[in-house]
Amino acid sequence: MKEEKISEAVVHRLPKYYRYLNDLEQKGIERISSWKMSSDLDLNASQIRRDLNCFGGFGQQGYGYQVIKLKEEIKKILGLGKKYTAVILGAGNIGQALINYLGFEKEGYNIAALFDVNEKLIGKEFHGKKIFHMNDLGAYIAENPVDIGIIATPRAAAQQAANLLMQHNVKAIWNFAPVDVTVQKGVKLENVHLSDSLYVLCYRINNETETEL
Amino acid sequence: MKEEKISEAVVHRLPKYYRYLNDLEQKGIERISSWKMSSDLDLNASQIRRDLNCFGGFGQQGYGYQVIKLKEEIKKILGLGKKYTAVILGAGNIGQALINYLGFEKEGYNIAALFDVNEKLIGKEFHGKKIFHMNDLGAYIAENPVDIGIIATPRAAAQQAANLLMQHNVKAIWNFAPVDVTVQKGVKLENVHLSDSLYVLCYRINNETETEL
Repeated sequence: MKEEKISEAVVHRLPKYYRYLNDLEQKGIERISSWKMSSDLDLNASQIRRDLNCFGGFGQQGYGYQVIKLKEEIKKILGLGKKYTAVILGAGNIGQALINYLGFEKEGYNIAALFDVNEKLIGKEFHGKKIFHMNDLGAYIAENPVDIGIIATPRAAAQQAANLLMQHNVKAIWNFAPVDVTVQKGVKLENVHLSDSLYVLCYRINNETETEL
Repeated sequence: MKEEKISEAVVHRLPKYYRYLNDLEQKGIERISSWKMSSDLDLNASQIRRDLNCFGGFGQQGYGYQVIKLKEEIKKILGLGKKYTAVILGAGNIGQALINYLGFEKEGYNIAALFDVNEKLIGKEFHGKKIFHMNDLGAYIAENPVDIGIIATPRAAAQQAANLLMQHNVKAIWNFAPVDVTVQKGVKLENVHLSDSLYVLCYRINNETETEL
């Protein structure tokens, strides 16, 4: 892999490539051309080749890309396949939905615990994950290193939750609250914007474009 | 507004512009240059100008864009501000989280009802929204036109839910189940990929890039 800096735009396309290659692998497809990828993913073929070139590429003229090899390379670049420990701040519907959602554990993400301020929830377990009081986050982290803090609080509590995580030295934040939080330099952040895709859907309802994969 | 076809890539950037301009408006900022937008949004300034040109643009050399005017234009293009009626298939955590999530109602989305197969849930109400049996979707839609079907079922039931919606002539599907569904021609679809942003976060954990807005 070349050690070039990968642009933000490419980084955001990597998960899409990764999912796509995973699907191909599961279907037993061994190689794929940039042309077929282009039509399946609704991306320009030369853009795909440029993207894949960013990290060394593996395409061969007239042969295409080896599905498994390319998938494994993207997986490595994304840092998947490692183990990550996460905690969820906010044990309401979003927090609970996230625990159920994706078989995160299978992918190497261990959601170790939930934190909330609702006394009725403290001490309970949800799918084997204990719910602690938000005030005990520091004590918990002192004993159990945490890689990722997931914010699933209501809007008004989100920045406070981010501050609490940073105060206890959590270096990556995945924010599901419907408001952007800000972080200090060095802390990695992804704000999730669920409504963005709803807006895109509305655009499609009002315009006769074809549906994207 | 020019009636040019807007590319997929631009369509996917529109919600980001919309959110950003909304924030500026709330902060009382009246105009904005493409340079400032560029640094705030981590997008190339000439790309921003090209994007905004796609729908007529409003930038003036040395003045920039009028925030409210541009926001309203993007809102119109996205088809926001209209009224949409939605139903949720799947009344579990994801479905319940979505009802709570965003003040969708305030934005013109009326989530009218939920549907599930779990007999224990049927007939109950959640935040004033009634839960019906999935088998009654057709009868419900015959009486209450539905614009958007939201799939919040487990993975295994997602395609069946999509089929059911299409069978009853729902023309837009917002899929939250952790598996892509496919739709027939003419049906608009957005598959939500929650884990994509987790993958991007993992990339950031493993690479010293700056955090994106």
